[in-house]
Amino acid sequence: MALRWGIIGCGFISNDFVRSLSVAKENHKVVAAAASTLQRAEDFIKKVGLTNVKAYGSYDELLADNNVDVAYIGLLNDCHVTWTVKAIKAGKHVLCEKPLGVNVKEVKLMIETAKSEKKFLMEAFWSRFFPVWLDIKEKIAARDLGDLRVVNINFGVLLADTRKDVTKGSTPLYDIGLYTVSLALYAFGKKPSSVDAIGAKDKHGADAWANITLQFGDDQRAVLYYDANNRPVNNAILNFENGSIQIPDFFWCPNEYTLINRKTNEHTTISHSYPGSQDNYHYNHSSGLSYEADHVYKKIQEGQIESERMSHDDSVAIHEVLEKVRKDLGVVFPQD
Amino acid sequence: MALRWGIIGCGFISNDFVRSLSVAKENHKVVAAAASTLQRAEDFIKKVGLTNVKAYGSYDELLADNNVDVAYIGLLNDCHVTWTVKAIKAGKHVLCEKPLGVNVKEVKLMIETAKSEKKFLMEAFWSRFFPVWLDIKEKIAARDLGDLRVVNINFGVLLADTRKDVTKGSTPLYDIGLYTVSLALYAFGKKPSSVDAIGAKDKHGADAWANITLQFGDDQRAVLYYDANNRPVNNAILNFENGSIQIPDFFWCPNEYTLINRKTNEHTTISHSYPGSQDNYHYNHSSGLSYEADHVYKKIQEGQIESERMSHDDSVAIHEVLEKVRKDLGVVFPQD
Repeated sequence: MALRWGIIGCGFISNDFVRSLSVAKENHKVVAAAASTLQRAEDFIKKVGLTNVKAYGSYDELLADNNVDVAYIGLLNDCHVTWTVKAIKAGKHVLCEKPLGVNVKEVKLMIETAKSEKKFLMEAFWSRFFPVWLDIKEKIAARDLGDLRVVNINFGVLLADTRKDVTKGSTPLYDIGLYTVSLALYAFGKKPSSVDAIGAKDKHGADAWANITLQFGDDQRAVLYYDANNRPVNNAILNFENGSIQIPDFFWCPNEYTLINRKTNEHTTISHSYPGSQDNYHYNHSSGLSYEADHVYKKIQEGQIESERMSHDDSVAIHEVLEKVRKDLGVVFPQD
Repeated sequence: MALRWGIIGCGFISNDFVRSLSVAKENHKVVAAAASTLQRAEDFIKKVGLTNVKAYGSYDELLADNNVDVAYIGLLNDCHVTWTVKAIKAGKHVLCEKPLGVNVKEVKLMIETAKSEKKFLMEAFWSRFFPVWLDIKEKIAARDLGDLRVVNINFGVLLADTRKDVTKGSTPLYDIGLYTVSLALYAFGKKPSSVDAIGAKDKHGADAWANITLQFGDDQRAVLYYDANNRPVNNAILNFENGSIQIPDFFWCPNEYTLINRKTNEHTTISHSYPGSQDNYHYNHSSGLSYEADHVYKKIQEGQIESERMSHDDSVAIHEVLEKVRKDLGVVFPQD
């Protein structure tokens, strides 16, 4: 049975998500797309090359469409809470783009709504569904290299000014920094015992970069650096007692990683090909969005209201870290 | 004309320094060695395979020896200030192992003494005399990859408890952490405008690890991680506008580095062989200590009282950073 998607917001990420469905393994069907105007929705449907998709000039109209099972929220950050809550209350399951909200308060409201309405809700942290990330989780659990001790991640991109808008909760921390936080929490599988950040703001009050330290008890820590004005070597290194796992650029949507055993000096690189062609996507490796789509398919088929791989608690944990980082940097959102 | 060395302290580092002189290019001659007992000094001279070296059972006796031109101070950290000052006042030039002192106050006292007595004094930051480090300084100045923007360094070693003795100013920050600080300051060629550290202490009050953030104005920063209880992937990455320079393990005494041009995706690895055999040294790549010895030779021949490559101001700048890191971590030395 097809999972019927309604796309809310017709920007770059929605383009990539919809296109990725064509290479997904499960039975996905886009039945509707809504933009701020009907023209934009129609243009989007044409651009992504789909037919038999209903175009709507308002999000409310899409939510009233009984053919839609699940809403994909691809709006700007500050609109996520409003339309996720509305979608759930309209009886839809929801996959909402990261960040789920712009603060913990919003995230909790969204989760409470999903729980009370018994609808599936997940923050679209696509990284967690890549085969490389699944492999790594297994390697950590298997302890082949001993305990995981130190995670070092660097992520820098030259972001456009439109992605540094503190009034909309769209700052580099909520655009690229959150990937580093998500991987650290995913790797250690628990909340940090402390969060500290040093960094700087731009002239408009948005965070520009930060060096984040997470502690997970005495023996485990993460050093996370993100930067919206520089393009350092982006990588993630998971340091174990006896070696490391290294994910090269692009660690957030990777197709390979290298296991290094320090005792034997053995280096093993494992690759997973990306699904389908990489053409016509806006972002790098976006065909990998299909991994999370297939996961959502299964969870909804099973009647779950959350994913064990990107759970509601995971979202809260990530957003608690983001909020503490913002506090340390003095970045305040109007929504706070 | 031979530069006549008197070795003060007969431990591991003195072993390595003396052995490295055999592969140095300039005319070095060890004429005396002093340890806490005469027996220790005699054993040392025998062990390093030298003849015609005077053994002393006290450092004062060595300093009274008119054949000694320059004292190499290879003592424990907390003895550096006392014996450097005494050596200078006894009319000797001094190469003192890093850290020059255990705080800025000590460092300044040592420098003032060298200046007033017109004797050469240098902190033995051997890294700065490796061909790789010299190359890198030229590459930064040449701006082939644009401006240097972000320096990321990781340095972790499983240190023995004897190297975590807060009562002697011998903590991991003053053992391995200082290498990361030194490279960052060397690369940017100036003092940081701000220094912040997050980390933890061990049960004896010594720093165990830290994540240090240095800012050098709005556009330049360093993320420095050191750790005495873990062995992460050790490396130094210098990120420029248009690419990077990567120094692999062991960045503090390296024989190669890789230049990566992000625009052309060109990777260029440049290697420099280590001088002579690497046998009979206690630490890795210690034959490279000969680079700094040759530099000291030239400076003393020129009648200088400091090196332009590891100047008195450089020592003060490094130790100011170390002291701020200690302050942030709450690590206090009895000498403070």
